[in-house]
Amino acid sequence: MFRTRTCGELRISNVNEEVTLAGWVQTVRKFGAITFVDLRDRYGITQLLFGEELNALLDSNPLGREFVLQATGKVSERSNKNANIPTGDIEINISTFKILNRSAVPPFTIQDDTDGGDDLRMKYRFLDLRRNAVKKNLEIRYAVNRAARNYLHDQGFMDIETPFLIKSTPEGARDFVVPSRMNPGQFYALPQSPQTFKQLLMVSGYDRYYQVVKCFRDEDLRADRQPEFTQIDCEMAFVEQEDILEMFEGMVKYIFKEVKGVDYIDQVERMTWEEAMWTYGNDKPDIRFDMKLANLKFPAHSFPAKENKESLIGGVNFKVFDEAETVIAIAVPGAAEYSRKQTDELTEWVKRPQVGMKGLVFIKCNADGTYKSSVDKFYGEEKLKAIADHANAKPGDLVLILAGAEERTRKAISDLRMELAERLGLRKKDEFRLLWVLDFPLFEYDEAGNRWVARHHPFTSPKPAHIDTMIINNPVIDNAAEYLRHPYAGIKANAYDMVLNGNEIGGGSIRIYQRELQEKMFAALGMDEEEQKHKFGFLLGAFEYGAPPHGGIAFGFDRLCAILGGSESIRDFIAFPKNNSGRDVMLDAPSAIDDKQFQELQIKLDLK
Amino acid sequence: MFRTRTCGELRISNVNEEVTLAGWVQTVRKFGAITFVDLRDRYGITQLLFGEELNALLDSNPLGREFVLQATGKVSERSNKNANIPTGDIEINISTFKILNRSAVPPFTIQDDTDGGDDLRMKYRFLDLRRNAVKKNLEIRYAVNRAARNYLHDQGFMDIETPFLIKSTPEGARDFVVPSRMNPGQFYALPQSPQTFKQLLMVSGYDRYYQVVKCFRDEDLRADRQPEFTQIDCEMAFVEQEDILEMFEGMVKYIFKEVKGVDYIDQVERMTWEEAMWTYGNDKPDIRFDMKLANLKFPAHSFPAKENKESLIGGVNFKVFDEAETVIAIAVPGAAEYSRKQTDELTEWVKRPQVGMKGLVFIKCNADGTYKSSVDKFYGEEKLKAIADHANAKPGDLVLILAGAEERTRKAISDLRMELAERLGLRKKDEFRLLWVLDFPLFEYDEAGNRWVARHHPFTSPKPAHIDTMIINNPVIDNAAEYLRHPYAGIKANAYDMVLNGNEIGGGSIRIYQRELQEKMFAALGMDEEEQKHKFGFLLGAFEYGAPPHGGIAFGFDRLCAILGGSESIRDFIAFPKNNSGRDVMLDAPSAIDDKQFQELQIKLDLK
Repeated sequence: MFRTRTCGELRISNVNEEVTLAGWVQTVRKFGAITFVDLRDRYGITQLLFGEELNALLDSNPLGREFVLQATGKVSERSNKNANIPTGDIEINISTFKILNRSAVPPFTIQDDTDGGDDLRMKYRFLDLRRNAVKKNLEIRYAVNRAARNYLHDQGFMDIETPFLIKSTPEGARDFVVPSRMNPGQFYALPQSPQTFKQLLMVSGYDRYYQVVKCFRDEDLRADRQPEFTQIDCEMAFVEQEDILEMFEGMVKYIFKEVKGVDYIDQVERMTWEEAMWTYGNDKPDIRFDMKLANLKFPAHSFPAKENKESLIGGVNFKVFDEAETVIAIAVPGAAEYSRKQTDELTEWVKRPQVGMKGLVFIKCNADGTYKSSVDKFYGEEKLKAIADHANAKPGDLVLILAGAEERTRKAISDLRMELAERLGLRKKDEFRLLWVLDFPLFEYDEAGNRWVARHHPFTSPKPAHIDTMIINNPVIDNAAEYLRHPYAGIKANAYDMVLNGNEIGGGSIRIYQRELQEKMFAALGMDEEEQKHKFGFLLGAFEYGAPPHGGIAFGFDRLCAILGGSESIRDFIAFPKNNSGRDVMLDAPSAIDDKQFQELQIKLDLK
Repeated sequence: MFRTRTCGELRISNVNEEVTLAGWVQTVRKFGAITFVDLRDRYGITQLLFGEELNALLDSNPLGREFVLQATGKVSERSNKNANIPTGDIEINISTFKILNRSAVPPFTIQDDTDGGDDLRMKYRFLDLRRNAVKKNLEIRYAVNRAARNYLHDQGFMDIETPFLIKSTPEGARDFVVPSRMNPGQFYALPQSPQTFKQLLMVSGYDRYYQVVKCFRDEDLRADRQPEFTQIDCEMAFVEQEDILEMFEGMVKYIFKEVKGVDYIDQVERMTWEEAMWTYGNDKPDIRFDMKLANLKFPAHSFPAKENKESLIGGVNFKVFDEAETVIAIAVPGAAEYSRKQTDELTEWVKRPQVGMKGLVFIKCNADGTYKSSVDKFYGEEKLKAIADHANAKPGDLVLILAGAEERTRKAISDLRMELAERLGLRKKDEFRLLWVLDFPLFEYDEAGNRWVARHHPFTSPKPAHIDTMIINNPVIDNAAEYLRHPYAGIKANAYDMVLNGNEIGGGSIRIYQRELQEKMFAALGMDEEEQKHKFGFLLGAFEYGAPPHGGIAFGFDRLCAILGGSESIRDFIAFPKNNSGRDVMLDAPSAIDDKQFQELQIKLDLK
């Protein structure tokens, strides 16, 4: 061992001990005949003092930043203590030292506020990983991993490894494929998730399964997506939805406690998908703050049970609202005093192509009880007050109203709500609010194909009350314009998402476990018998031999770690991430392969 | 939840409790008006008693093997107790039940001694996994996984995930490659091991890393190799060989204790590679039993320090020995009474192509102190006794002698030793003997290329005393016939293998951490500067910026589990293994992919 102690552990109680440390030179400070060196390792930083007698040696072997140093000496009390670091009370009075390795000048500084840009830090990721900020992220990641495993183990779950070289069954996302040399012309696929395997394990009787496992999706990478990502993947047999919700909110609370020291004692809130869309405009609402949607106008078929408030905005011949499918307002707390410049800027914000609205209507609810709006021409104070009241606005608030097509408008008002919350500091990094979103639609309508696609995946069970609807009815959509009236449009899934601070961190469902229902589902998605057999014959086969009721969930491990670390970028929480083109710039991968490899695999390029 | 208790937990103390169980029907036994059902789940088997009043229901809904059943009733004491199972004192007097799912008749019986052949069980792996024998294996696997993680965690190791989509750097084994759609014409490779990443993590200062991680090698599959396999992968910084040996024999002992309840308190034995080859004929000797090799004749350059015993066999004009490069004997305990038929059979055994010897010489050391051999024509009793004494034979033993070329003969006598140990019952499943094999040669000679190849991998450091030999000398072999006299032939690696019961379960080394030495190593292996930069530029780059001394080890997790489970077949310890052609017969993978996938990936088939 090159050291007897680490750079993070020595305290005043260790004074006079003889120790050997090894680590990296963080800084060198020369003061006349003595030299101070801050030595860094994984555990901390300790100050080394090189006295006069070593100075000649240091002069002939000058230390530079990031040199690897082994040094032996006596722990002494510092005259000039540093309260900012745990080892700040002591220093090591060095008697002997050895340079274990030299370092070139790093391309950026190894400190919290580095001068290195993203590209440079990715190319030299091995140096970026030395920075405290990145190290803390990986430590959180390991702590989450460890906590999840401990909880699941204590609950009787078994880690069972599922294969990585599987069968390509493109469904939703694209598979990465792997040519098989031993089976020329054939390919493996890398798993998008261990979904079918964990279901088979339930059929096999393993009843509580988990895995912290890499998954792969060959999708065009939006910011903050990775072609390989990690899931905490779980499945249970002989359970109903309620059992799963309790088990896994238990897990997340345990992780909060272990990793962040947070006692999350509140019951986790629950909300149907419909309620989430109605109240927040999206299916993963951030409920740390209010600003709930005030639905003024909306298509009846979207929310059949909800009350229409068109009377509040109609009858004044304001065409923007009259011609819109949907009109929704939010009340921004304390923003009535926004200047013209500020409201103009918000209008520009909603008109950006990413949001895509034509404009923004606002009502200022003045502190004195008066109202002032951008549509005073159409609406008198009384009408403005009625709208503002419906939006729950208080004096001093600013009501913002968007109008347009249902889907776009709802998404836009949701985006606007999040943007304003961000600006108002309502999205606090150290506040955690969990939410279960339930009762998703089982199917989504695919306009291009005039057919149904699975919203979650084809193994998700309908709600028990909706199974008959699915069995009895023909999935074919005769009248495309009226697809919302098709019985399948109303079928709800026995599915659940866990949402944390406006991010989906986990999702799952109770699965289909009856062969007939699974076949009906595949058929509803447009898969004929042959295709079913080719792609999922093994699963249908397994359902023949006593499949138990089962369900499960998968957590996006990278994202969960990022949120717990106070970030929304998963890349910062992955040791060796890829960039937005799926490249590892440090390795320079992917790259060309050689002729011998092509020959052995019996494939060739077919570049366009 | 479909159950209140499991099928493994009820005891006499639970009598009179009302319980609901759910599981699979193992057997149905009808006795007149009552029916007994053995219900099975992951935790055990419990007997259900269906009384008269339920019989009509059972008649109309007959239960079959592997039906999924939910049943409620009262725990009662059994009149006819079964001492073989933990729940054997009780049964459940069923009041209500529900068939949760039916089952077709399984293609083989779900019990310890199944009637299913290998192929059938692999095709229906989800049923095979229900068998107790297979379940026990996966439970051992999880227990080993858990124990290894707990030990490493307690020692300050961090689990850090390394990427799966990396760069192809074929070196030794073949890479599996993955075409990149976003980077047409380029390929990722799946990692053969996280070797370079764990070294980078050491450069980054993470100092104690571990991962239980899938690795991939596209090799022709011998029996009991898998294209994807799992390693317990570890690396440490600021350590020397001794630190690693202590840390990881600690880990294996901890696993023994946790998984098998075995207190392995002995110091783990150590042996140099040379000593292992000399004494056992291979580098992973099974030291549970003796039968050490008696080297009678051998090439001086193979074991320069060893004493030649040619005088024992020479001078009698026995051409087989006189013309052989190597002659080695072993003494088989208590086998002097072998019949002619038995010695003939052993002779046939060594003449099989897998062993490849021309014949077998034997000496019977009779209980009365006389000797009888297959070469009595050449050797008198005195000479036979001298040979037998050298082989440490006692009265009653049988000395077997092989002669031929050094490499083949040594391997053959080693194989023969193992075969006889197996036959004599010396390889006991419940006895565990660990061994460190040290000081491997750093290089192996590649005859085809007349060049050096890395025995372990190109990141292994030479022994400190041999670094200069490597730096100073030119790796080029001028005279192929005399390659053994090249200075590189004598360079020993700072490497170690852990051997358990004759199986290599782990191996590793102290790594090179100096850029110059690493470049010299790559050059010695015939890699020019351009190739070095292309393949390992990132690692050489990392060594520029303060790489610490480091080393590590990787354990073959599948094999370790198999040995602890008393088996030598890793396949039995993998949930979803592949067959010898690399196929998953359950999934029917690999398989063809569709045209759209080829087009998107911009590759096509090039079948010969």
